[in-house]
Amino acid sequence: MDNDAGYWLGLSHVEGLGVRGAHKLIGHFGSPKAAYMASLTELEGSGLPAAVCQSVFTQAGMKEAEKEMEAATKADCQLVHFGSAEYPPLLRQIADPPLVLYARGDVQALSGHCLAVVGSRRPSAYGLQVARRLARDLAERSLVITSGLARGIDSSAHHGALEAKGKTIAVQGRGMDGIYPAENKKLAEKIAESGAVISEFPLGTGPTPENFPIRNRIISGLSLGVLVVEASEYSGSLITARLATEQNREVFAVPGNITTAQSFGPNHLIKQGAKLVDQWMDIVEEFPPEVRMQLLPSGKASDDGQGVEAAGALFEQSLTPEQKKVFEALRVDEALFVDTVLAAVPLPQAQVLQVLLELEMSDLIRQLPGKNFIRKL
Amino acid sequence: MDNDAGYWLGLSHVEGLGVRGAHKLIGHFGSPKAAYMASLTELEGSGLPAAVCQSVFTQAGMKEAEKEMEAATKADCQLVHFGSAEYPPLLRQIADPPLVLYARGDVQALSGHCLAVVGSRRPSAYGLQVARRLARDLAERSLVITSGLARGIDSSAHHGALEAKGKTIAVQGRGMDGIYPAENKKLAEKIAESGAVISEFPLGTGPTPENFPIRNRIISGLSLGVLVVEASEYSGSLITARLATEQNREVFAVPGNITTAQSFGPNHLIKQGAKLVDQWMDIVEEFPPEVRMQLLPSGKASDDGQGVEAAGALFEQSLTPEQKKVFEALRVDEALFVDTVLAAVPLPQAQVLQVLLELEMSDLIRQLPGKNFIRKL
Repeated sequence: MDNDAGYWLGLSHVEGLGVRGAHKLIGHFGSPKAAYMASLTELEGSGLPAAVCQSVFTQAGMKEAEKEMEAATKADCQLVHFGSAEYPPLLRQIADPPLVLYARGDVQALSGHCLAVVGSRRPSAYGLQVARRLARDLAERSLVITSGLARGIDSSAHHGALEAKGKTIAVQGRGMDGIYPAENKKLAEKIAESGAVISEFPLGTGPTPENFPIRNRIISGLSLGVLVVEASEYSGSLITARLATEQNREVFAVPGNITTAQSFGPNHLIKQGAKLVDQWMDIVEEFPPEVRMQLLPSGKASDDGQGVEAAGALFEQSLTPEQKKVFEALRVDEALFVDTVLAAVPLPQAQVLQVLLELEMSDLIRQLPGKNFIRKL
Repeated sequence: MDNDAGYWLGLSHVEGLGVRGAHKLIGHFGSPKAAYMASLTELEGSGLPAAVCQSVFTQAGMKEAEKEMEAATKADCQLVHFGSAEYPPLLRQIADPPLVLYARGDVQALSGHCLAVVGSRRPSAYGLQVARRLARDLAERSLVITSGLARGIDSSAHHGALEAKGKTIAVQGRGMDGIYPAENKKLAEKIAESGAVISEFPLGTGPTPENFPIRNRIISGLSLGVLVVEASEYSGSLITARLATEQNREVFAVPGNITTAQSFGPNHLIKQGAKLVDQWMDIVEEFPPEVRMQLLPSGKASDDGQGVEAAGALFEQSLTPEQKKVFEALRVDEALFVDTVLAAVPLPQAQVLQVLLELEMSDLIRQLPGKNFIRKL
């Protein structure tokens, strides 16, 4: 058993300290252990309330931590504390990262390139289908799909990732001694076989409503971005999307018919600036180049560092010969004036113009002002 | 019969001149009549090709114009030429405004605040319903709905405007001696009773495919913006949307399920920056304040020039008492910090925060960085 984990767990049980207070304390002393070893005067120098300093000085939380560590082992859970190398790097960057995560499964999955896929617990058939398909497509490109194990969209997202033999992470709003909802027990087991089921809540914590918004910040915090598939007006998914924005993560949304209540949320997010998604590429193309390079098929990409070319190659497979000719005449690093493209491609002018429109519609190229064209990736 | 119209019509019949050439010529001489009266030397000074100058000098087009004017009268059409006060002001601003419009109905409608509603000729039931509803809602706020009289979305848009007893304009891709498609003859008659059916094509021009893109620039050119409701991948509606962008008009689109082919177009447009629309307000709020003031219910607005307040009043009708309290605590001209709002509203803190979220979801207020809130209109 990791000895350090005890001190981290201890601090998470000090009443009145809170996650932010704990990080302040650790910032001051360098580690939870050092905080517990400090004198009362030193503790009071941290700027935290006197009562809290007194608690830490009297080793508050350490007994609970000891029990908790035993229980975690029995519950087949690893503890991943903030100081450990296995702590997910993106989660580390949020304003209030959990001190300790309880994890069942492969904790390495937590450090993969994650994308959250969340949405309504009462979705339409359309929502279920789309969540599953997009999660599968994204997991096939080795993205780790994070979600909340809830009924509806969350479950579909986990299933989609598993279908692709990809990894997926379920973040629970209750302690790891149970699965919520209970009907997802089998699903949780499958998830833990390749990915992980995690929680920041101590064992024995029930799935009470106030836990879910707290849990949601972890779903988005683990992830490069959050994709919302169906969400009604005051849905928790919209809260997750807002948290994602506050955490500087991308927000993506799948649009839907404006006559469907479940599409209100995603459509609203798109109005507010979320990126509309109707295929997996819409998501991947927003990621930083170094992430894209690791996601897209390797080979050429890893050899010469030309990730952009690899991406192009992937898209090109679906092009007609004419589209390929025009696409190849375009550049990634410089927009070309339409006349230059016309001169470069041995096809009738009208056809080249038509193909340029097709490529633009397929999101492979972009038209810039003044009839200039550039490859999009 | 307007005597000037003859010269404008004449120029539109000069071979090799074209709309842009004609405007260049008129720019040089001040009017079509002056161009026809000019000497050959003077004409050649305009910089147009010698053959074209020769044509104008020999009064080319004037005979056709005379016949055309008689035929227009017989066909119950007015001629609205570029020099006339009835020429639609927004259309005047595009790069290649038609020299003459043939119009049946009320030519004043052409100068109203127009919005184009266009889309697929093979829409889904959803598309038909939404086009009709949005056109009706917008026409109720006295927007003039412009469209192309085509089957599908266009027809639904015209019908929706008529249902609201509003005005609508059909822009034809053929001469005004017929209606295309023929099944819309009755619809065209109804449109002309309060709005107008128009065309720039001479009488006798058939509905050939190449006319439609040319016609589309008038649909967008008349309008403050273009709303696309369903459009498949290579649809004419997407061309209209592109023309709208080139004409500096707003592009709006109704999203739809990503599994529906007809929603590909609007979803694609939204990805490219078109504004997602799920209610009429989404459109109106993008218009300049002076336009909004004329559209929204008069009374207060026209009395004190506070169009913004009138808009607020309109939205407020649908608010709960709590929402109203919070909404009224906010300002239109200054964002308030959340603590200021909490202090100003005599409700529990949690409730105020919940109501702020509700108002934001309803698009009535906006949250600015740093927990500041402002009324949206």
